[in-house]
Amino acid sequence: MKLYDSKMAPNPRRTRIFLAEKGVSVPTEQVDMMKMEQRTAAFTALNPLQRMPVLVLDDGTVIAESLAICRYFDALHPEPPLFGVGAKEIGLVEMWSRRVENNFFATVAAVFRHLHPAMKDLEVPQVPAWAEANRPRVTQFLELLDQQLSQHEFIAGDRFSVADITALCTVDFMKPARLIVPEGAANVKRWHAAVSARPSAKA
Amino acid sequence: MKLYDSKMAPNPRRTRIFLAEKGVSVPTEQVDMMKMEQRTAAFTALNPLQRMPVLVLDDGTVIAESLAICRYFDALHPEPPLFGVGAKEIGLVEMWSRRVENNFFATVAAVFRHLHPAMKDLEVPQVPAWAEANRPRVTQFLELLDQQLSQHEFIAGDRFSVADITALCTVDFMKPARLIVPEGAANVKRWHAAVSARPSAKA
Repeated sequence: MKLYDSKMAPNPRRTRIFLAEKGVSVPTEQVDMMKMEQRTAAFTALNPLQRMPVLVLDDGTVIAESLAICRYFDALHPEPPLFGVGAKEIGLVEMWSRRVENNFFATVAAVFRHLHPAMKDLEVPQVPAWAEANRPRVTQFLELLDQQLSQHEFIAGDRFSVADITALCTVDFMKPARLIVPEGAANVKRWHAAVSARPSAKA
Repeated sequence: MKLYDSKMAPNPRRTRIFLAEKGVSVPTEQVDMMKMEQRTAAFTALNPLQRMPVLVLDDGTVIAESLAICRYFDALHPEPPLFGVGAKEIGLVEMWSRRVENNFFATVAAVFRHLHPAMKDLEVPQVPAWAEANRPRVTQFLELLDQQLSQHEFIAGDRFSVADITALCTVDFMKPARLIVPEGAANVKRWHAAVSARPSAKA
């Protein structure tokens, strides 16, 4: 088994944090996205979409997409639960996980990918107007998140979950996207300090 | 329990097809998105993101996001499995489900939302250059999907799954987006005819 990983990118970090929370160790190989190594013929044969991370099983099966790799390991190692336990919590974790992905990770990524000069060969064409359309959505979502975190320790409730992992990676992704968490978002700041202090955050 | 549903939109349809495949019936209330009913104060109180569908449980818990609602019902009604069985299949279903969402549903939606005159009050601002950037990605993904379906009956393998549900809703969403499946995509056409013939497709 091998996990193709990229230290700099937010998606592979989601998988690494998930594995660290599970206490699972997997052999990894680094793919340097700044050198476009995810676009080589060898890597494209593994994942035609040229995205990271990718897990290759011992039988040769390829599982791409960070949260698909998480679901694979979750099925093998259910503890600690990171996708919720019981129908209601499972639904709420998935709701917040998707809200964070679609309204926060995706909007920060749009600002980064469509404005940052380092992305000009990776995001073709860059559409600056799309970045600008997403910029206010980042702040809007942080208001909703701050309200949720005023009532709960973690994003989906009282238990750390994949929604926290994606949101942590997104807040840290705001720095290269040249975005900042508003001063007034005190609950987001409290939560971010807490999840950043977990050993998994360094994975 | 009540499911807030919109007959015209692709996301609520994903949930309806999932429930029909499970043989589960839920009381529904229609929300007319063309009349902006998802932006009323009453609906915004349920889902601040003003998105459809939304499930409200008997204890008042609100679960938004179509696939989060599917996960809730899947936990209560595991049969037939639509998210895979066993770690490997679970990983592959999630991989294809996310590939379809991120590279097909999202790209078709970008073309529709940023070009269609009917969306001018819902997608603000419309960014036509973003629609045009996504147009070739729809065709590119259909090539990958056609290759996958040349080797498997369904998208994630030999079993119908949520990946098929999202892809079916996306192919049908291509019509209002004024996009067409290329003539050469024979495997996609074979698969689309088969999944459209399932009773759940009419849900």
